[in-house]
Amino acid sequence: MSRGPVRISQLAETTGVAVATIKYYLREGLLPEGERTSATQAQYGDEHVRRLRLVRALLGVGGLSVATARDVLAQLDGEHASIAEMLGVAQTAVTPTADEGLDLGRARALVEHWGWSIDPDSDDVLAALEVAVAGLDAAGFDLPESTLDGYARAMATVAEAEIEGIPVDSVDAAVQYVVLGTVLVEPLLLALRRLAQQDASWRRFGV
Amino acid sequence: MSRGPVRISQLAETTGVAVATIKYYLREGLLPEGERTSATQAQYGDEHVRRLRLVRALLGVGGLSVATARDVLAQLDGEHASIAEMLGVAQTAVTPTADEGLDLGRARALVEHWGWSIDPDSDDVLAALEVAVAGLDAAGFDLPESTLDGYARAMATVAEAEIEGIPVDSVDAAVQYVVLGTVLVEPLLLALRRLAQQDASWRRFGV
Repeated sequence: MSRGPVRISQLAETTGVAVATIKYYLREGLLPEGERTSATQAQYGDEHVRRLRLVRALLGVGGLSVATARDVLAQLDGEHASIAEMLGVAQTAVTPTADEGLDLGRARALVEHWGWSIDPDSDDVLAALEVAVAGLDAAGFDLPESTLDGYARAMATVAEAEIEGIPVDSVDAAVQYVVLGTVLVEPLLLALRRLAQQDASWRRFGV
Repeated sequence: MSRGPVRISQLAETTGVAVATIKYYLREGLLPEGERTSATQAQYGDEHVRRLRLVRALLGVGGLSVATARDVLAQLDGEHASIAEMLGVAQTAVTPTADEGLDLGRARALVEHWGWSIDPDSDDVLAALEVAVAGLDAAGFDLPESTLDGYARAMATVAEAEIEGIPVDSVDAAVQYVVLGTVLVEPLLLALRRLAQQDASWRRFGV
């Protein structure tokens, strides 16, 4: 696509997304209009390629609805005070909304215990921690504090490297990185954990 | 429950699961029958309490259907050569079935690169890694090898501690630990990652 603006058919070829699907995304406001060159034709540039990949990821692996994806993209296209704020938007979009009345006391205590500074507007993410811990409790799964601390340390190591890796030269690239990193890396981590468990299990218990 | 067998109403009280729900699980074969004490009454023991918590976790946070949960429980109740094999059953149950024709070459190469010994029957888990990596590629998300290695190391640390923690004195306790650990810890890890990202983000970029 570095050869300059192209027609919709070439955009489809470059991205592997069918023309009909691209037109659907245009109608739904997920993809900005191209630059009109005649009444029936428009041209698309690199930003359309990037956006199209982002849309595919949000709707595919991310599992967002078209309405939610549109909402996320609109927020990301708005003015943002900081990358930290943008991260909040991306996280909130892919985190289920918490029940209003949920007591977040245990989650807040844990975060404080680890000395983490978190987004004051991210109750949904705190709620995800609260629900996960409550789920373990309800199942009678007694997770020692040392294990929980170990999980927190491992995730802090992961997060540290991820935030270090955010490209800061372009907002567009940063948006791409944060949203895709939030949505697409989760299944990767879960798959890695399961395979690593198998390895650790064979080493501990043998065949 | 350590006071010995109880009636269904007390089982409901102990576990917080409604009598009607317990009866439903009995009918569906998710919970073994109690010991009959008359034509209309049966008694339930500690194993019913444990199993009931496991069922709640599988159907709730685990998101399994009744049919899948019954299948998992039946397999776990069967004879198992080893805890490693039981882990495989638990993992397979909560991992979506992969497409038959999927090329697992990249996932296999990564696992070999990390020197992990994995279950030869766990193609579905390998496929989850393959799909996750392919999803990042398709989205144009360029994950450096060092980042991927970092994710693998973090998950290996997590898995090592988890497998160390498996209680080996009772198969029942081991089953409980492995199944709940697989199903319930995933949302915990994801919530921790998001909160840790917020912390790392505020530290890197400030308010």
